[in-house]
Amino acid sequence: VQAVVVEKGAVRVVSDWPCPEPGPGEALVRMRLAGICATDLEIVRGYSPLQGVLGHEFVGEVASAPDPAWVGQRVVATINIGCGECAVCLGQGPEHCPRRKALGITRDGVFAEFVALPLDNLLLVPEGLPDEAAVFAEPLAAALRIREQLAVPPSTLVAVVGPGRLGLLVAQVLAVAGTSVVVLGRRPASLALPQALGLDTALVPAAPTAGFDFVVETTGNAAGLQEALRLVGPLGTVVLKSTYAGAAEVDLTPLVVNEITVVGSRCGPFAPALRLLAAGQVQVEPLIAAVYPLGEAVEALEHAARPDVRKVLLRP
Amino acid sequence: VQAVVVEKGAVRVVSDWPCPEPGPGEALVRMRLAGICATDLEIVRGYSPLQGVLGHEFVGEVASAPDPAWVGQRVVATINIGCGECAVCLGQGPEHCPRRKALGITRDGVFAEFVALPLDNLLLVPEGLPDEAAVFAEPLAAALRIREQLAVPPSTLVAVVGPGRLGLLVAQVLAVAGTSVVVLGRRPASLALPQALGLDTALVPAAPTAGFDFVVETTGNAAGLQEALRLVGPLGTVVLKSTYAGAAEVDLTPLVVNEITVVGSRCGPFAPALRLLAAGQVQVEPLIAAVYPLGEAVEALEHAARPDVRKVLLRP
Repeated sequence: VQAVVVEKGAVRVVSDWPCPEPGPGEALVRMRLAGICATDLEIVRGYSPLQGVLGHEFVGEVASAPDPAWVGQRVVATINIGCGECAVCLGQGPEHCPRRKALGITRDGVFAEFVALPLDNLLLVPEGLPDEAAVFAEPLAAALRIREQLAVPPSTLVAVVGPGRLGLLVAQVLAVAGTSVVVLGRRPASLALPQALGLDTALVPAAPTAGFDFVVETTGNAAGLQEALRLVGPLGTVVLKSTYAGAAEVDLTPLVVNEITVVGSRCGPFAPALRLLAAGQVQVEPLIAAVYPLGEAVEALEHAARPDVRKVLLRP
Repeated sequence: VQAVVVEKGAVRVVSDWPCPEPGPGEALVRMRLAGICATDLEIVRGYSPLQGVLGHEFVGEVASAPDPAWVGQRVVATINIGCGECAVCLGQGPEHCPRRKALGITRDGVFAEFVALPLDNLLLVPEGLPDEAAVFAEPLAAALRIREQLAVPPSTLVAVVGPGRLGLLVAQVLAVAGTSVVVLGRRPASLALPQALGLDTALVPAAPTAGFDFVVETTGNAAGLQEALRLVGPLGTVVLKSTYAGAAEVDLTPLVVNEITVVGSRCGPFAPALRLLAAGQVQVEPLIAAVYPLGEAVEALEHAARPDVRKVLLRP
C-alpha cells in the first residue's frame, strides 16, 4: 500500500508498504483524509526516533473489524495505545502509560492507505459532519485538554501566543464561555486569518510586562516559555502546548518571583471535540490551506512548514 | 549604627550607618537576632541591585512607634511593603504589588542595629517562643506558602530536593498531615541532619524516572528544574522555591509530554508559621549552625555559604 515513511530521519512516499495486519481487538481502517501537524514536522526534523509511517490526525472508514458492526463506519481515533494492564491505564487511561505507543510517533501512523487500530481507540464520526471537519478532531481535542486541566473563569484575560494551526483552535475553545481571548502574533500577515475568524488579535506587546491571567504558548519556539513568563501577570498561568527538539535557555526568576504556574498540556478528549465540531461551535475548515494527494506528501510537508500556513491535508 | 551594607556588589560592615528614620505609620525596631538565607548569598553574588542594608529574616523589639502599645513588644515582620493603594495591595496584599519594596532586597534590610518598618508588617511573637525559634518565622512562612498554593493530599508521594536550610523547613511542613516526604541529597553527609530530625532521606535516585507526585526544588541550582522534571511522575507537580542569578538550560519536552505542573512559590503567611513554632510542630533550632556578632557578618556570610551549613544567625 502507499505510505509516508520516516526512516533514518528522512521522509519519503513508498508504494509497496505492507498492508498492516490488525492484531486481536484491532480494526483495519482505510484512511479518507489526514492532517499534518507541527509534531509531524518536528518528527521529520528528528524530535522522535520514529521508523515507520508518519501521521496521527485523520478520519477513516473501517474496512474490517472483530465486531462487524464497525465495518463501513466513519471513524476518528485517539492516538495513545496503552498496555491496558497497568495502574495508569486502568485508572486514568492510556495517555500516560509508561509502555504506551503513540500513533505516528512511536507506532505506525495514518499517512497511509490503511492503518490498524484497536477498537478501543475508535470513535464514530457524527453523521453529516464532513471529513474536512472531522479530521480536526485530534488537534481540537488537544486544545480542549486545557479546559480539562484548568478552570478558565469567564472573566479571565487570556493570550494565545502563536496564531498557527493549534493556536487558532486553542483560542476558539478558550473563548467559548465568553472569556476575553487575544491571539498574539509577530507579523500583521499572521493575524489576518484569526481576524477573519472573528478572534481578537494583537502584535506581541513589546512592553516588559503585559499582565495576562493565562498565556497559552503554541509557537513551538524554544524562546516561547521566556516570552510567556514576560506576558503573564503575577499569580498567572502559562500553558505549554508545544514540544520541540532541543533545550531552551530560560531565566526562571520571574516564574518564582511572580509565582507563576506553568502547565504542560498534550492530548485531549475526542468526544467533546466531536460535539463542538458537530454543533459548528468551532470553525475549522477556514484553517485548511491545501489538500494534497498522499503521493505528494513530501511536498505537502514542505507546504505545511511555510509561514502562515495552517492545516495541510492528505487524501489517498 | 552598625549595619551590613551591600554597595556596588561588595558587602561590608559599617559602624556609622545613619539610624533609620521611621516614616508615617512606621515603627523603629531594634534587631535582636537575624538569619542569613540563600537569597542574601545570591544578593551578595549580584542577584539583586540592592544598595543598602542586607537581610530580611529577624526578630526584634519595637523601640518607638506611632501607637505606643507596640513599644517594647517583641516582633517579626513580613518583608514586602506595597504601595497600599493599587488593586493588588487592596485585593491580595503587598506580595505582588508592582511598586512593592522588599526588605533587604530593594529596601534597607534587617542586618543592622535598627530597622524602620510599617506597623502593618509587624506581628507579635508569642510569649515564651525564644528568639532562636522566632527568627525562623520568615523562611517557615515561605515553606508554608506551598500549602496555600496547592492541595497536598496526605497520600501524596513528595520529594524535597535539597536538604538545606529551606528544604528542611519545606519537608517538615509538607509532612505534618501524614504525607510521605523524602528529602533528597547528593551526598550522605548532607542527609545526617534531616535524619536526625526524623525525616525520611535518600540520595538523589539515578534512574531515568522516579515517579514522585510532588517534587519541591529548593537547591537554587540552575539545573534544578531539569532534575525535578526527571524525578516527578506524569501529571505530577514541581514546586520551584529558589531564585538565582542567571539562566538555566532546560529541555521542556518532559514538561509537556508528561503534563507536569510547575509552580513558582515565594513568600508565605507568618501567622500560621508562628502558630507552628509556638506549638513546637516544626523543629528549627537544630538547623542553627552558628551565631555571629553583627560586626562579623562577612565571616558569617562565608560560613553560611559552606556545604551542609544551614542557618547562621547574627546578633547585634
